[in-house]
Amino acid sequence: MALLEDLQWRHALKGYDTKKKVKVEELGKIIEAIRLAPTSSGLQPFKVLLVSDKDMKEKVASACYSTNEAYVRESSYTLILAGWDRYTEERIDEVFKRTAEDRGFSVDRYTDYANKLKEVYVGMQSAQENFAHIARQVYIALGFGLAQAAELRIGSTPIEGYDANKLDELLNLQDLGLRSLCLITLGHSDSEKDWLAPMPKIRRSMNDFLVEL
Amino acid sequence: MALLEDLQWRHALKGYDTKKKVKVEELGKIIEAIRLAPTSSGLQPFKVLLVSDKDMKEKVASACYSTNEAYVRESSYTLILAGWDRYTEERIDEVFKRTAEDRGFSVDRYTDYANKLKEVYVGMQSAQENFAHIARQVYIALGFGLAQAAELRIGSTPIEGYDANKLDELLNLQDLGLRSLCLITLGHSDSEKDWLAPMPKIRRSMNDFLVEL
Repeated sequence: MALLEDLQWRHALKGYDTKKKVKVEELGKIIEAIRLAPTSSGLQPFKVLLVSDKDMKEKVASACYSTNEAYVRESSYTLILAGWDRYTEERIDEVFKRTAEDRGFSVDRYTDYANKLKEVYVGMQSAQENFAHIARQVYIALGFGLAQAAELRIGSTPIEGYDANKLDELLNLQDLGLRSLCLITLGHSDSEKDWLAPMPKIRRSMNDFLVEL
Repeated sequence: MALLEDLQWRHALKGYDTKKKVKVEELGKIIEAIRLAPTSSGLQPFKVLLVSDKDMKEKVASACYSTNEAYVRESSYTLILAGWDRYTEERIDEVFKRTAEDRGFSVDRYTDYANKLKEVYVGMQSAQENFAHIARQVYIALGFGLAQAAELRIGSTPIEGYDANKLDELLNLQDLGLRSLCLITLGHSDSEKDWLAPMPKIRRSMNDFLVEL
Protein backbone atom coordinates (compact mmCIF):
# COMPACT_ATOMS: atom_id res chain seq x y z
CA MET A 1 0.00 0.00 0.00
CA ALA A 2 1.06 3.57 -0.53
CA LEU A 3 2.32 5.41 2.53
CA LEU A 4 -0.27 8.20 2.18
CA GLU A 5 -3.09 5.65 2.32
CA ASP A 6 -1.51 4.03 5.37
CA LEU A 7 -1.22 7.40 7.09
CA GLN A 8 -4.84 8.22 6.27
CA TRP A 9 -5.87 4.85 7.69
CA ARG A 10 -4.02 5.16 10.99
CA HIS A 11 -5.27 6.84 14.13
CA ALA A 12 -4.34 6.50 17.80
CA LEU A 13 -6.31 3.45 18.93
CA LYS A 14 -8.56 4.14 21.91
CA GLY A 15 -9.54 0.55 22.60
CA TYR A 16 -8.01 -2.85 21.83
CA ASP A 17 -9.57 -6.16 20.89
CA THR A 18 -7.82 -8.47 23.34
CA LYS A 19 -8.78 -11.56 21.33
CA LYS A 20 -7.13 -10.53 18.08
CA LYS A 21 -3.38 -10.70 18.51
CA VAL A 22 -0.57 -9.15 16.49
CA LYS A 23 1.56 -11.91 14.96
CA VAL A 24 5.22 -12.24 15.87
CA GLU A 25 6.18 -11.80 12.23
CA GLU A 26 4.26 -8.52 12.08
CA LEU A 27 5.84 -7.32 15.31
CA GLY A 28 9.23 -8.11 13.77
CA LYS A 29 8.52 -5.83 10.81
CA ILE A 30 7.46 -2.97 13.07
CA ILE A 31 10.64 -3.21 15.14
CA GLU A 32 12.68 -3.49 11.93
CA ALA A 33 11.19 -0.21 10.64
CA ILE A 34 12.16 1.41 13.93
CA ARG A 35 15.67 -0.01 13.64
CA LEU A 36 16.05 1.35 10.11
CA ALA A 37 15.12 4.90 11.11
CA PRO A 38 17.85 7.45 10.36
CA THR A 39 19.38 9.29 13.29
CA SER A 40 21.78 12.22 13.52
CA SER A 41 25.28 11.08 12.45
CA GLY A 42 23.93 7.52 12.45
CA LEU A 43 24.42 7.18 16.20
CA GLN A 44 21.11 5.35 16.85
CA PRO A 45 21.11 6.63 20.43
CA PHE A 46 18.29 4.43 21.71
CA LYS A 47 16.94 0.96 22.27
CA VAL A 48 13.54 -0.68 21.92
CA LEU A 49 12.24 -2.49 24.98
CA LEU A 50 9.64 -5.12 24.16
CA VAL A 51 6.86 -5.84 26.63
CA SER A 52 4.86 -8.97 25.89
CA ASP A 53 4.04 -10.86 29.07
CA LYS A 54 1.14 -10.07 31.37
CA ASP A 55 3.09 -9.23 34.52
CA MET A 56 5.43 -6.89 32.71
CA LYS A 57 2.45 -5.17 31.07
CA GLU A 58 0.97 -4.62 34.54
CA LYS A 59 4.21 -3.10 35.69
CA VAL A 60 4.36 -0.71 32.71
CA ALA A 61 0.63 0.07 33.01
CA SER A 62 1.16 1.09 36.63
CA ALA A 63 3.25 4.04 35.42
CA CYS A 64 0.66 5.19 32.86
CA TYR A 65 -1.87 7.99 33.21
CA SER A 66 -5.64 7.44 32.81
CA THR A 67 -6.73 5.41 29.78
CA ASN A 68 -3.19 4.68 28.64
CA GLU A 69 -3.06 2.08 31.40
CA ALA A 70 -5.75 0.07 29.63
CA TYR A 71 -4.04 0.33 26.25
CA VAL A 72 -0.88 -1.25 27.64
CA ARG A 73 -2.83 -4.04 29.35
CA GLU A 74 -5.00 -4.76 26.30
CA SER A 75 -2.25 -4.45 23.70
CA SER A 76 -0.72 -7.50 22.05
CA TYR A 77 2.67 -5.89 22.58
CA THR A 78 3.92 -2.65 24.04
CA LEU A 79 7.19 -1.10 22.87
CA ILE A 80 9.14 1.34 25.01
CA LEU A 81 11.50 3.62 23.10
CA ALA A 82 14.32 4.58 25.44
CA GLY A 83 17.05 7.06 24.54
CA TRP A 84 20.60 7.26 25.77
CA ASP A 85 20.70 9.46 28.85
CA ARG A 86 23.53 11.37 27.16
CA TYR A 87 26.25 11.10 24.52
CA THR A 88 29.61 9.83 25.76
CA GLU A 89 32.99 9.33 24.10
CA GLU A 90 32.66 5.55 24.49
CA ARG A 91 29.23 5.46 22.87
CA ILE A 92 30.39 7.57 19.96
CA ASP A 93 33.54 5.46 19.53
CA GLU A 94 31.53 2.22 19.49
CA VAL A 95 29.41 3.47 16.59
CA PHE A 96 32.35 4.42 14.39
CA LYS A 97 34.36 1.31 15.28
CA ARG A 98 31.40 -0.80 14.13
CA THR A 99 30.77 1.38 11.07
CA ALA A 100 34.40 0.99 9.98
CA GLU A 101 34.26 -2.79 10.52
CA ASP A 102 30.96 -3.20 8.67
CA ARG A 103 32.25 -1.19 5.73
CA GLY A 104 35.72 -2.71 5.71
CA PHE A 105 37.54 0.55 6.46
CA SER A 106 40.19 1.40 9.01
CA VAL A 107 38.62 3.15 12.00
CA ASP A 108 40.98 6.10 11.35
CA ARG A 109 38.70 7.07 8.50
CA TYR A 110 36.16 8.29 11.05
CA THR A 111 38.48 9.76 13.70
CA ASP A 112 38.08 13.41 12.68
CA TYR A 113 34.33 13.15 12.39
CA ALA A 114 33.98 11.32 15.71
CA ASN A 115 36.20 13.89 17.40
CA LYS A 116 34.04 16.71 16.12
CA LEU A 117 30.96 15.04 17.57
CA LYS A 118 32.69 14.48 20.91
CA GLU A 119 33.82 18.08 20.98
CA VAL A 120 30.23 19.31 20.60
CA TYR A 121 28.18 16.69 22.44
CA VAL A 122 30.54 15.84 25.26
CA GLY A 123 32.66 18.98 25.45
CA MET A 124 30.11 21.73 24.89
CA GLN A 125 26.62 20.42 25.66
CA SER A 126 24.98 19.50 28.96
CA ALA A 127 23.39 16.07 29.48
CA GLN A 128 20.04 17.83 29.19
CA GLU A 129 20.94 19.33 25.81
CA ASN A 130 22.18 15.91 24.69
CA PHE A 131 18.93 14.27 25.73
CA ALA A 132 16.81 16.86 23.93
CA HIS A 133 18.72 16.06 20.74
CA ILE A 134 18.53 12.31 21.33
CA ALA A 135 14.77 12.53 21.93
CA ARG A 136 14.24 14.10 18.52
CA GLN A 137 15.98 11.20 16.79
CA VAL A 138 13.89 8.69 18.69
CA TYR A 139 10.70 10.35 17.47
CA ILE A 140 11.72 9.76 13.86
CA ALA A 141 11.80 6.09 14.79
CA LEU A 142 8.51 6.34 16.67
CA GLY A 143 6.90 7.57 13.47
CA PHE A 144 8.38 4.74 11.42
CA GLY A 145 6.96 2.22 13.89
CA LEU A 146 3.49 3.74 13.58
CA ALA A 147 3.74 3.85 9.78
CA GLN A 148 4.85 0.22 9.55
CA ALA A 149 2.03 -0.89 11.85
CA ALA A 150 -0.43 1.02 9.65
CA GLU A 151 0.91 -0.62 6.49
CA LEU A 152 0.17 -4.00 8.12
CA ARG A 153 -3.26 -2.65 9.19
CA ILE A 154 -2.27 -3.06 12.81
CA GLY A 155 -3.50 -0.47 15.25
CA SER A 156 -1.19 1.49 17.50
CA THR A 157 -1.25 4.19 20.14
CA PRO A 158 1.76 6.46 20.65
CA ILE A 159 1.86 7.26 24.36
CA GLU A 160 3.58 10.14 26.13
CA GLY A 161 1.09 10.16 29.00
CA TYR A 162 2.96 8.23 31.67
CA ASP A 163 5.30 8.96 34.54
CA ALA A 164 8.70 8.54 32.91
CA ASN A 165 10.65 8.74 36.15
CA LYS A 166 8.50 6.05 37.70
CA LEU A 167 8.72 3.74 34.69
CA ASP A 168 12.47 4.22 34.37
CA GLU A 169 12.87 3.32 38.02
CA LEU A 170 10.60 0.28 37.80
CA LEU A 171 12.66 -1.03 34.89
CA ASN A 172 16.05 0.12 36.22
CA LEU A 173 16.70 1.95 32.98
CA GLN A 174 19.30 4.13 34.65
CA ASP A 175 21.54 1.06 34.95
CA LEU A 176 21.36 0.70 31.17
CA GLY A 177 22.15 4.39 30.66
CA LEU A 178 18.69 4.88 29.18
CA ARG A 179 15.64 7.08 29.75
CA SER A 180 12.25 6.17 28.32
CA LEU A 181 10.71 8.60 25.86
CA CYS A 182 7.44 7.12 24.66
CA LEU A 183 5.47 3.91 24.40
CA ILE A 184 3.79 2.33 21.41
CA THR A 185 0.96 -0.08 22.15
CA LEU A 186 0.13 -2.48 19.31
CA GLY A 187 -2.98 -4.48 18.58
CA HIS A 188 -6.29 -4.43 16.75
CA SER A 189 -9.14 -2.02 17.25
CA ASP A 190 -12.17 -2.97 19.30
CA SER A 191 -14.90 -1.08 17.47
CA GLU A 192 -16.99 -0.69 20.63
CA LYS A 193 -14.23 0.90 22.68
CA ASP A 194 -12.28 2.66 19.93
CA TRP A 195 -14.34 5.85 19.82
CA LEU A 196 -11.81 7.70 17.66
CA ALA A 197 -12.02 5.20 14.79
CA PRO A 198 -15.13 6.61 13.07
CA MET A 199 -14.16 10.27 13.47
CA PRO A 200 -12.63 12.23 10.61
CA LYS A 201 -8.90 12.82 10.90
CA ILE A 202 -8.15 16.41 11.85
CA ARG A 203 -5.23 18.13 10.22
CA ARG A 204 -4.42 21.75 9.52
CA SER A 205 -5.29 22.62 5.89
CA MET A 206 -2.39 22.71 3.43
CA ASN A 207 -3.09 26.42 3.05
CA ASP A 208 -2.42 26.99 6.72
CA PHE A 209 0.40 24.43 6.97
CA LEU A 210 2.63 25.26 4.02
CA VAL A 211 4.44 28.58 3.58
CA GLU A 212 6.01 29.17 0.17
CA LEU A 213 9.06 31.35 0.60
CA MET B 1 6.41 -0.67 -2.40
CA ALA B 2 6.67 -1.92 1.15
CA LEU B 3 7.93 0.56 3.72
CA LEU B 4 10.84 -1.68 4.77
CA GLU B 5 12.13 -1.76 1.19
CA ASP B 6 11.79 2.02 0.96
CA LEU B 7 13.72 2.46 4.20
CA GLN B 8 16.44 0.07 3.00
CA TRP B 9 16.65 2.07 -0.24
CA ARG B 10 17.00 5.48 1.35
CA HIS B 11 20.19 7.12 2.54
CA ALA B 12 21.16 10.71 3.17
CA LEU B 13 22.10 12.01 -0.29
CA LYS B 14 25.60 13.46 -0.47
CA GLY B 15 25.31 14.93 -3.97
CA TYR B 16 22.45 16.00 -6.19
CA ASP B 17 21.91 15.76 -9.93
CA THR B 18 20.91 19.32 -10.72
CA LYS B 19 19.47 18.30 -14.10
CA LYS B 20 16.94 15.79 -12.77
CA LYS B 21 14.19 17.65 -10.98
CA VAL B 22 11.58 16.46 -8.52
CA LYS B 23 8.11 16.91 -10.00
CA VAL B 24 5.61 19.22 -8.33
CA GLU B 25 3.21 16.31 -7.90
CA GLU B 26 5.89 14.32 -6.08
CA LEU B 27 6.72 17.27 -3.87
CA GLY B 28 3.04 17.52 -3.02
CA LYS B 29 2.97 13.93 -1.79
CA ILE B 30 6.01 14.48 0.40
CA ILE B 31 4.49 17.54 2.03
CA GLU B 32 1.20 15.67 2.43
CA ALA B 33 2.96 12.86 4.34
CA ILE B 34 4.49 15.50 6.60
CA ARG B 35 1.07 17.08 7.11
CA LEU B 36 -0.49 13.73 8.04
CA ALA B 37 2.10 13.00 10.75
CA PRO B 38 0.59 12.52 14.19
CA THR B 39 1.58 14.98 16.90
CA SER B 40 0.96 15.09 20.62
CA SER B 41 -2.72 15.91 21.27
CA GLY B 42 -3.06 16.63 17.55
CA LEU B 43 -1.67 20.14 17.96
CA GLN B 44 0.52 20.06 14.83
CA PRO B 45 2.78 22.69 16.33
CA PHE B 46 4.78 23.46 13.20
CA LYS B 47 4.79 24.63 9.62
CA VAL B 48 6.61 23.60 6.47
CA LEU B 49 8.46 26.36 4.64
CA LEU B 50 9.05 25.56 0.99
CA VAL B 51 12.16 26.86 -0.72
CA SER B 52 12.16 26.55 -4.48
CA ASP B 53 13.67 29.61 -6.12
CA LYS B 54 17.37 30.18 -6.63
CA ASP B 55 17.75 33.34 -4.55
CA MET B 56 15.92 31.88 -1.60
CA LYS B 57 18.07 28.73 -1.82
CA GLU B 58 21.17 30.96 -1.68
CA LYS B 59 19.82 32.67 1.40
CA VAL B 60 19.13 29.35 3.15
CA ALA B 61 22.46 27.90 2.00
CA SER B 62 24.25 30.85 3.58
CA ALA B 63 23.17 29.60 7.00
CA CYS B 64 24.34 26.00 6.37
CA TYR B 65 27.54 24.37 7.54
CA SER B 66 30.06 22.79 5.15
CA THR B 67 28.61 20.47 2.49
CA ASN B 68 25.01 21.11 3.50
CA GLU B 69 25.29 24.41 1.67
CA ALA B 70 25.73 22.56 -1.61
CA TYR B 71 22.80 20.23 -0.94
CA VAL B 72 20.44 23.18 -0.54
CA ARG B 73 21.76 24.85 -3.70
CA GLU B 74 21.63 21.66 -5.77
CA SER B 75 18.31 20.37 -4.45
CA SER B 76 15.13 20.60 -6.51
CA TYR B 77 13.37 21.80 -3.36
CA THR B 78 14.37 22.41 0.23
CA LEU B 79 11.86 22.13 3.04
CA ILE B 80 12.34 23.86 6.36
CA LEU B 81 10.43 22.35 9.26
CA ALA B 82 9.79 25.10 11.78
CA GLY B 83 8.18 24.50 15.17
CA TRP B 84 6.11 26.86 17.27
CA ASP B 85 8.43 28.78 19.58
CA ARG B 86 6.10 27.76 22.42
CA TYR B 87 2.57 26.63 23.24
CA THR B 88 0.11 29.42 23.98
CA GLU B 89 -3.53 29.46 25.04
CA GLU B 90 -4.52 30.97 21.71
CA ARG B 91 -2.71 28.31 19.72
CA ILE B 92 -4.27 25.51 21.74
CA ASP B 93 -7.74 27.08 21.46
CA GLU B 94 -7.43 27.42 17.68
CA VAL B 95 -6.78 23.67 17.33
CA PHE B 96 -9.79 22.59 19.34
CA LYS B 97 -12.08 25.18 17.80
CA ARG B 98 -11.18 23.81 14.38
CA THR B 99 -11.40 20.19 15.56
CA ALA B 100 -14.91 20.77 16.91
CA GLU B 101 -15.95 22.49 13.67
CA ASP B 102 -14.49 19.79 11.44
CA ARG B 103 -16.20 17.06 13.46
CA GLY B 104 -19.49 18.89 13.88
CA PHE B 105 -19.29 19.14 17.67
CA SER B 106 -19.74 22.03 20.04
CA VAL B 107 -16.34 23.39 21.11
CA ASP B 108 -17.37 22.71 24.74
CA ARG B 109 -16.65 19.05 24.12
CA TYR B 110 -12.94 19.86 24.17
CA THR B 111 -12.84 22.49 26.91
CA ASP B 112 -11.66 20.22 29.72
CA TYR B 113 -8.98 18.61 27.60
CA ALA B 114 -7.76 21.96 26.24
CA ASN B 115 -7.65 23.39 29.76
CA LYS B 116 -5.53 20.48 30.94
CA LEU B 117 -3.06 21.11 28.13
CA LYS B 118 -2.94 24.84 28.92
CA GLU B 119 -2.39 24.10 32.58
CA VAL B 120 0.66 21.97 31.79
CA TYR B 121 2.17 23.64 28.73
CA VAL B 122 1.43 27.28 29.53
CA GLY B 123 1.08 27.16 33.31
CA MET B 124 3.85 24.78 34.31
CA GLN B 125 6.43 24.54 31.54
CA SER B 126 8.99 27.06 30.33
CA ALA B 127 9.18 28.07 26.66
CA GLN B 128 12.32 25.92 26.47
CA GLU B 129 10.49 22.84 27.78
CA ASN B 130 7.66 23.55 25.33
CA PHE B 131 10.07 23.77 22.44
CA ALA B 132 11.82 20.51 23.38
CA HIS B 133 8.42 18.80 23.25
CA ILE B 134 7.44 20.52 20.02
CA ALA B 135 10.73 19.51 18.41
CA ARG B 136 10.02 15.84 19.07
CA GLN B 137 6.70 16.05 17.25
CA VAL B 138 8.32 17.73 14.28
CA TYR B 139 10.81 14.89 13.96
CA ILE B 140 7.98 12.38 13.52
CA ALA B 141 6.97 14.48 10.54
CA LEU B 142 10.57 14.74 9.33
CA GLY B 143 10.69 10.95 9.19
CA PHE B 144 7.43 10.75 7.26
CA GLY B 145 8.81 13.20 4.70
CA LEU B 146 11.92 11.07 4.21
CA ALA B 147 9.87 7.87 3.98
CA GLN B 148 7.50 9.36 1.40
CA ALA B 149 10.41 10.63 -0.68
CA ALA B 150 11.95 7.14 -0.56
CA GLU B 151 8.70 5.52 -1.68
CA LEU B 152 8.80 7.79 -4.73
CA ARG B 153 12.51 6.95 -5.17
CA ILE B 154 13.40 10.56 -4.58
CA GLY B 155 16.58 11.28 -2.70
CA SER B 156 16.66 13.42 0.41
CA THR B 157 19.06 14.73 3.01
CA PRO B 158 17.85 15.53 6.52
CA ILE B 159 19.93 18.48 7.72
CA GLU B 160 20.59 19.65 11.26
CA GLY B 161 23.96 21.15 10.38
CA TYR B 162 23.12 24.82 9.99
CA ASP B 163 23.01 27.93 12.13
CA ALA B 164 19.39 27.97 13.28
CA ASN B 165 19.58 31.44 14.82
CA LYS B 166 21.01 32.86 11.62
CA LEU B 167 18.45 31.17 9.39
CA ASP B 168 15.56 32.15 11.64
CA GLU B 169 16.74 35.75 11.52
CA LEU B 170 17.23 35.73 7.75
CA LEU B 171 13.66 34.48 7.30
CA ASN B 172 12.13 36.54 10.15
CA LEU B 173 10.71 33.37 11.65
CA GLN B 174 10.36 35.06 15.02
CA ASP B 175 7.62 37.23 13.53
CA LEU B 176 5.72 34.04 12.68
CA GLY B 177 6.27 32.63 16.19
CA LEU B 178 8.39 29.87 14.69
CA ARG B 179 11.89 28.43 15.12
CA SER B 180 13.45 26.24 12.47
CA LEU B 181 14.33 22.69 13.49
CA CYS B 182 15.69 20.93 10.43
CA LEU B 183 15.87 21.05 6.67
CA ILE B 184 15.07 18.39 4.10
CA THR B 185 16.71 18.77 0.72
CA LEU B 186 15.02 16.86 -2.09
CA GLY B 187 16.29 15.72 -5.45
CA HIS B 188 17.96 12.88 -7.30
CA SER B 189 21.35 11.38 -6.60
CA ASP B 190 24.37 12.29 -8.70
CA SER B 191 26.29 9.03 -8.65
CA GLU B 192 29.66 10.80 -9.01
CA LYS B 193 29.14 13.07 -6.01
CA ASP B 194 26.94 10.87 -3.84
CA TRP B 195 29.71 8.88 -2.15
CA LEU B 196 27.37 7.34 0.42
CA ALA B 197 25.12 5.67 -2.17
CA PRO B 198 27.21 2.52 -2.73
CA MET B 199 28.06 1.96 0.93
CA PRO B 200 26.18 -0.58 3.03
CA LYS B 201 23.66 0.88 5.43
CA ILE B 202 24.94 0.75 9.01
CA ARG B 203 22.50 -0.12 11.76
CA ARG B 204 22.92 -1.66 15.17
CA SER B 205 22.12 -5.41 15.03
CA MET B 206 18.67 -6.41 16.28
CA ASN B 207 20.43 -8.29 19.05
CA ASP B 208 21.97 -5.09 20.32
CA PHE B 209 18.94 -2.93 19.60
CA LEU B 210 16.04 -4.88 21.06
CA VAL B 211 15.69 -5.70 24.74
CA GLU B 212 12.97 -8.22 25.62
CA LEU B 213 11.66 -7.44 29.08
